[in-house]
Amino acid sequence: MEFRFQSIGLIHSCFKEKFGIPRQPGLVPEAKAILELLPPYNRPEALAELAGFSHLWIIFVFHQALRDEWRPTVRPPRLGGNRRIGVFASRAPFRPNPIGLSLVTLEGIDTAAGKCLLRLGGVDLLDGTPVLDIKPYLPYAEAITEARAGYAFDAPGAVATVTFSAQAEVQIAAAEIKHPGLAQLIRQLIAADPRPAYHDGRTARTRYGMRLWDYDVRWEVTGDSACVVTELATVS
Amino acid sequence: MEFRFQSIGLIHSCFKEKFGIPRQPGLVPEAKAILELLPPYNRPEALAELAGFSHLWIIFVFHQALRDEWRPTVRPPRLGGNRRIGVFASRAPFRPNPIGLSLVTLEGIDTAAGKCLLRLGGVDLLDGTPVLDIKPYLPYAEAITEARAGYAFDAPGAVATVTFSAQAEVQIAAAEIKHPGLAQLIRQLIAADPRPAYHDGRTARTRYGMRLWDYDVRWEVTGDSACVVTELATVS
Repeated sequence: MEFRFQSIGLIHSCFKEKFGIPRQPGLVPEAKAILELLPPYNRPEALAELAGFSHLWIIFVFHQALRDEWRPTVRPPRLGGNRRIGVFASRAPFRPNPIGLSLVTLEGIDTAAGKCLLRLGGVDLLDGTPVLDIKPYLPYAEAITEARAGYAFDAPGAVATVTFSAQAEVQIAAAEIKHPGLAQLIRQLIAADPRPAYHDGRTARTRYGMRLWDYDVRWEVTGDSACVVTELATVS
Repeated sequence: MEFRFQSIGLIHSCFKEKFGIPRQPGLVPEAKAILELLPPYNRPEALAELAGFSHLWIIFVFHQALRDEWRPTVRPPRLGGNRRIGVFASRAPFRPNPIGLSLVTLEGIDTAAGKCLLRLGGVDLLDGTPVLDIKPYLPYAEAITEARAGYAFDAPGAVATVTFSAQAEVQIAAAEIKHPGLAQLIRQLIAADPRPAYHDGRTARTRYGMRLWDYDVRWEVTGDSACVVTELATVS
């Protein structure tokens, strides 16, 4: 049976490409986004009493994972990329229906000038993500601390230390004028270790880059757990 | 922007009509359902490693809430039916995209004879519900016990006692042969108080009925919190 849905909103976030996005929402509190309700859904009444909730579910479309075919198994990066698991046992974006589910924090609601904007924190959402639904989080029913979660029981690994080079310090300080909190965001994102888990065995790669807003953040890994942010380059 | 999705599965449950369905999943553990994967998604590999998870997200379509129009506010039964809240601050089925989200327990997986069946517990899903996606529950990211949840912080109210009439005892005992656990299910469902919260003020109604499998369960409310199951009638 086929169903058709309209996007009710659009995500504006710092994540301009997939690499670097936290593996799950909540891991990087400083990752902020704006959810803009699209017409005809931009009605302030539709958000009445939402401010009483600290956490929201965002149901969205993995718009960069739209494919005509589907595969029954995936190889999650956190398992090293060589172990296959069922697509329904994963949160991978490539799935029969490319629907995503993210738990985010609600930091504020702005409904001035005909706009309906939700300020979100702890997001793992790509810029331009189409939103299908917003639902309040219900801790009495949905906070199951004792749930078993197989291979995904623990949060993904993190690196021990993140430091900035002198050059990066200066560049980031300048960029903070436009993007307050950028240094903290970069620190949290790199500490969450966006590298695929197979970096250690398969490649000898030590330099990485990711796109944030209009910048390329570049960093180097030394040993197994220390990262130095070397540069913040403006994307032309 | 419009998106099209195919149902990947179908729910077989005891709930043949909306009245009586628990307000949220998990409130009635004895409420069981079978999720049947539909072709071409009935591939056992798609479920590999899913058995390691105790809880799953089911993303589904509220197929009895399909409407051409949407309203920005709803009146949730648990608030007495006379307080309006924003549709995005509610879990109501009537919403711009009628997509539902339920956290259920995974009790088993059967993949014999070309079928892929998931045995689920604690469901709030109507029989015949089309399923769009199955995702594992991730407690490290999704169990936020300290979340604020406004008007919906506490679980919905429950009634104090549920007893069976002599007639109902006999009828339920006979039906248990076909549906083991039926007595316990009825007890849990009525204790979860499916009556709308405005029952006390607006109506003097004391008799209720709900459809379970092929039966009509009938009960009476005495005082504010005691229920007597009077009869289990077979629906012809």
